[in-house]
Amino acid sequence: MKLAIAGVGNNISALIQGIAYYGMLDAEALPGVARPVLGGIAVTDIETVAVFDLAPNKVGKKLSDAMFAEPNNYPKLETPGPASDPEVTFGIADPTDRSQIDAVAQVLRDSGAEVFLYSLPTGLPELAAAYGRAAVDAGVAVVNCTPDPIAGLPALFAEAREKNIPMVGDDLQSHIGSSIVHGTVLSLLEERGITLTGSYQLNIGGNADFKNLREHGGNKEASKHRALRQKVGNTDSVTVIPSAGFVAHLHDRKIAHMSVEGRGWAGMPVRLEISLQVQDSSNAAGVIIDLIRIAAIAARRGEGGFPVAATQLLKSPQMLTEWHEQVPSGRAALSALAADHA
Amino acid sequence: MKLAIAGVGNNISALIQGIAYYGMLDAEALPGVARPVLGGIAVTDIETVAVFDLAPNKVGKKLSDAMFAEPNNYPKLETPGPASDPEVTFGIADPTDRSQIDAVAQVLRDSGAEVFLYSLPTGLPELAAAYGRAAVDAGVAVVNCTPDPIAGLPALFAEAREKNIPMVGDDLQSHIGSSIVHGTVLSLLEERGITLTGSYQLNIGGNADFKNLREHGGNKEASKHRALRQKVGNTDSVTVIPSAGFVAHLHDRKIAHMSVEGRGWAGMPVRLEISLQVQDSSNAAGVIIDLIRIAAIAARRGEGGFPVAATQLLKSPQMLTEWHEQVPSGRAALSALAADHA
Amino acid sequence: MKLAIAGVGNNISALIQGIAYYGMLDAEALPGVARPVLGGIAVTDIETVAVFDLAPNKVGKKLSDAMFAEPNNYPKLETPGPASDPEVTFGIADPTDRSQIDAVAQVLRDSGAEVFLYSLPTGLPELAAAYGRAAVDAGVAVVNCTPDPIAGLPALFAEAREKNIPMVGDDLQSHIGSSIVHGTVLSLLEERGITLTGSYQLNIGGNADFKNLREHGGNKEASKHRALRQKVGNTDSVTVIPSAGFVAHLHDRKIAHMSVEGRGWAGMPVRLEISLQVQDSSNAAGVIIDLIRIAAIAARRGEGGFPVAATQLLKSPQMLTEWHEQVPSGRAALSALAADHA
Amino acid sequence: MKLAIAGVGNNISALIQGIAYYGMLDAEALPGVARPVLGGIAVTDIETVAVFDLAPNKVGKKLSDAMFAEPNNYPKLETPGPASDPEVTFGIADPTDRSQIDAVAQVLRDSGAEVFLYSLPTGLPELAAAYGRAAVDAGVAVVNCTPDPIAGLPALFAEAREKNIPMVGDDLQSHIGSSIVHGTVLSLLEERGITLTGSYQLNIGGNADFKNLREHGGNKEASKHRALRQKVGNTDSVTVIPSAGFVAHLHDRKIAHMSVEGRGWAGMPVRLEISLQVQDSSNAAGVIIDLIRIAAIAARRGEGGFPVAATQLLKSPQMLTEWHEQVPSGRAALSALAADHA
Repeated sequence: MKLAIAGVGNNISALIQGIAYYGMLDAEALPGVARPVLGGIAVTDIETVAVFDLAPNKVGKKLSDAMFAEPNNYPKLETPGPASDPEVTFGIADPTDRSQIDAVAQVLRDSGAEVFLYSLPTGLPELAAAYGRAAVDAGVAVVNCTPDPIAGLPALFAEAREKNIPMVGDDLQSHIGSSIVHGTVLSLLEERGITLTGSYQLNIGGNADFKNLREHGGNKEASKHRALRQKVGNTDSVTVIPSAGFVAHLHDRKIAHMSVEGRGWAGMPVRLEISLQVQDSSNAAGVIIDLIRIAAIAARRGEGGFPVAATQLLKSPQMLTEWHEQVPSGRAALSALAADHA
Repeated sequence: MKLAIAGVGNNISALIQGIAYYGMLDAEALPGVARPVLGGIAVTDIETVAVFDLAPNKVGKKLSDAMFAEPNNYPKLETPGPASDPEVTFGIADPTDRSQIDAVAQVLRDSGAEVFLYSLPTGLPELAAAYGRAAVDAGVAVVNCTPDPIAGLPALFAEAREKNIPMVGDDLQSHIGSSIVHGTVLSLLEERGITLTGSYQLNIGGNADFKNLREHGGNKEASKHRALRQKVGNTDSVTVIPSAGFVAHLHDRKIAHMSVEGRGWAGMPVRLEISLQVQDSSNAAGVIIDLIRIAAIAARRGEGGFPVAATQLLKSPQMLTEWHEQVPSGRAALSALAADHA
Repeated sequence: MKLAIAGVGNNISALIQGIAYYGMLDAEALPGVARPVLGGIAVTDIETVAVFDLAPNKVGKKLSDAMFAEPNNYPKLETPGPASDPEVTFGIADPTDRSQIDAVAQVLRDSGAEVFLYSLPTGLPELAAAYGRAAVDAGVAVVNCTPDPIAGLPALFAEAREKNIPMVGDDLQSHIGSSIVHGTVLSLLEERGITLTGSYQLNIGGNADFKNLREHGGNKEASKHRALRQKVGNTDSVTVIPSAGFVAHLHDRKIAHMSVEGRGWAGMPVRLEISLQVQDSSNAAGVIIDLIRIAAIAARRGEGGFPVAATQLLKSPQMLTEWHEQVPSGRAALSALAADHA
Repeated sequence: MKLAIAGVGNNISALIQGIAYYGMLDAEALPGVARPVLGGIAVTDIETVAVFDLAPNKVGKKLSDAMFAEPNNYPKLETPGPASDPEVTFGIADPTDRSQIDAVAQVLRDSGAEVFLYSLPTGLPELAAAYGRAAVDAGVAVVNCTPDPIAGLPALFAEAREKNIPMVGDDLQSHIGSSIVHGTVLSLLEERGITLTGSYQLNIGGNADFKNLREHGGNKEASKHRALRQKVGNTDSVTVIPSAGFVAHLHDRKIAHMSVEGRGWAGMPVRLEISLQVQDSSNAAGVIIDLIRIAAIAARRGEGGFPVAATQLLKSPQMLTEWHEQVPSGRAALSALAADHA
């Protein structure tokens, strides 16, 4: 399965190294992989054929070098280099320059890429739109793992659907993150009749995200409250702090401290203290591996637009206005793909 | 609703004090109560009409005194005494002595009790059976919150069903306990594709249970593993220690330390540390309050045998061989009762 | 012992309620009090004779009411009201207005106060200086529990010393806080030969301090690093976040999450996770009670300037350039006072 | 420095692998090593010249193989094999058989060993005594890292001292363990005037020790209480559970959960939760490395009996009746050795 990538950050370092890591193991037991084979495509079947970035310390290097360039700080695993190791190309710098978009589209066509993965830093919506344009022009399926809209651009999405180009996005759900753990525990207490009196969730980490979020965490806080409200009715007494601080020595690790206080029978206290520690970019790559295979399968089947099997793996599955009702059918579609080893 | 009780332990102290506590509050907002009214019966509608025990420091005292006698150590709340405050009667000492059983049955009849709650210490199955016999003879609905079988005695259960006597048991689910929290978190990781590499659950407390369990925890360990296996496929790498130790200063508090270690994408570690603190007997009383109301409603409706609404509140809902399939209908029945304010 | 106070915040609520609380107990066993009697003055010997504030919802009220006015949120304990309960007077609003300073000095003289406690919000250095001026004019001993300098004003301090007025400040050490716990643990690891690889300290709370610190925590962060460096040689890999967030439901509680990671023999990991929970203002009041008694004793003895017994209870004992060398003699002086029951 | 060893358990696996590990690093920065050079002997100067054991799966194998034989479960590090790699000899099986003792003494003499390290499983005091006898006969310095007495045998110790044979024992202090962390925190609270209301310490692990201790933890519990009482006056409200359980997946890791609850000013709660995670055998090997060097230096200097520099590294420094008074001079002696690079 041929993959093109824009943006060589920690998530891509995790993705590429992980594929190499699993290549060293027995395919029957891949720790941390929910679906070793999806629609007939194994984790190790992914081949990178084109890579775009703008950073001077990445462009011109082989992917296997660029993925360790600063500020990337995902651990360097003891794995063989990737089977296919293209050089990083200078991609789109000015999204208003049509010739740059055309150049990327041409590289995509020449590379034979089946799926284009958009993974540049969050907060560059014009760039996201320009890369989406290039992929649709080239007829390549799109996976967008950032919140900057691509699938969420109505005209572009409609065009992709008409031309039978799959479009998977926007923004991925982490493999296991503080929102899902916190929401699950709050929901359990609600179901059991414990009265919530107060709860908090503090997130810290040592990658670039946590520096930015400490200052500009408002949107993220709102988005995390939305995620909790999908699980529990009322989050008034819940404080969520997306970045309680940047802690350099954690590098790409992320730690969440959560506390839940409530009252049980006769008003007696109930107290839950939780800490969660994950490798932030593994948490993303473990979901990206499914999204790109879902996109590839849809492309091979000539199914344009949004593949329902991706529903539960995304934060905002676009074009689905009432998407929560789609989760069960999304889950069924994903299971069917995982069972399909033909 | 008239209640008779055998065994004045911490659970009964929590139940009686809790009813008085809620009597002081506005009925609309009762912290720690999932269902303020169930089948038309409010939490504060419970009236104790008869109490049995054998302990010399409890028999002959008023219930409101006996419930603070050693080894009970549930906190003494600032509440008014119970509205009805019967004296503790000497109950069945020799379960093979038919006259003692008859005497209890006669007290039950005379008291007008609608529900008989069995709450003596665990490990006395003959006594449980004898009290069950007395209740059926008296035509009084039974709730058994211990694992010693009453509803699980086939002949007695069949007789109760025929005579339209409700029988609720055996053994209650805690309001919120380490099994349900641990199982929920393990299940979440399984669902998200994290590979479990090891987990433990350590329980400590300062009441009599924890002293006994430290030495004789084998059955409890097996039962807790069964509870986890209802949530996750495989518990081979999960260590459960029902009593890691007796910690006197905790009194009736219970603390569980849980740890979950797994591997995510590229084999990177995922780690969850959880601690749960509850008031042990509040945890039981918060469920007993529903079980006795469910039994009373069934009795008033003339429905004998097992009331399906109790299914999810019990560890072993007897006579239901495939009871896990009954949980959804049990949940629906319970919701219907909670909505029925007539 | 007669006390005058400027600023009716949570610390004062804790101080006044605590004195009343201990009045209800047997004087031999006062939980949370290191020194029940100091220089012959018992905890319960304190009498408030004058109180200043500016807040419209406090001025004109009795101290016993004002101490519960917003934004104060220290818990309301079940204690009798204070024995002496003066009305809150409007104090100094404009520190450049000499007549306001004189008015405060006159109230101090009239009240018979032996000690003046400065406890207004941090960040008002001119106000601190003006109140210090008033106290020196009135010949009353000063205790400053804020970091805004009073004892740190060289001319004022020199004048106080000459006139035999004690001056205790500036800024108190908490009874038990995250700096001392964190520093103690880091120091233990250093002493045992564990190599520190990274550590963090996150503080959260629900009082006004934590709102301000989240935005303006730079000075506090530096001060906390200084505190750690008194314990360990190198804090380069230690991240300190004075306010990781404002968590409303904690009210006056403060929680610190600390983590210490190191390497032991053969580079194997050593890991310590610590959480500390305290009542923030109790943490201050438990030290204030000693500082005001030390000041009173010095005043009664006619000893002006800085009383060495206060050394270890302050963050910055002013006028002591090499104050760390004074800690042992400070400790000895404090022990002597505690032993002096005459 | 030539070393002979009795008992190839996890501690020895940690010791030997650790020496090889540090051999790969720059000698200036050895993580987890407090004193890279002690009395002129570097960590990497240790050479094993003789090894005794009785286990059929260890005897006859090279040390580098035997140290991974069951039930050993210290991790296998990526290090080169040890420079000197003797075969494991069948040692003393019957401590009453003089010829076996003589045979061991002869091997010790022939090997040129400067130090004999006793490290067989705890609970075999006759075996310890027999090995001690053999070492004294051979004129080799003894280090005993178990609580079974060798230095604590008065006649043998006196003989060693006369013959200028150093004797270091008995039982080592861990590098960093739950007793020292717990004691340090309890002592801090006591010093700050917080009134302790209850505390516990739960230890779990996955090596053979934790299986045995769960059943037979009485002595260990008493010894841990003694350790705490060196730090704090009163441990009545402290519960110590040396083995709260055997948790297989932890292997040689050890985890301690500690909780400290107290009351501060106005009786308000203070709460500390601590968890400590270490590699159990690294914790021992990090101290053994100092003990064997201290013994070698004393031997080279012809100083028999107990070397004061070892005082603070042992649980029971024998022949020192009032040994706590010796800790300062022990510390000074150890510092002097560490500074002596000649």
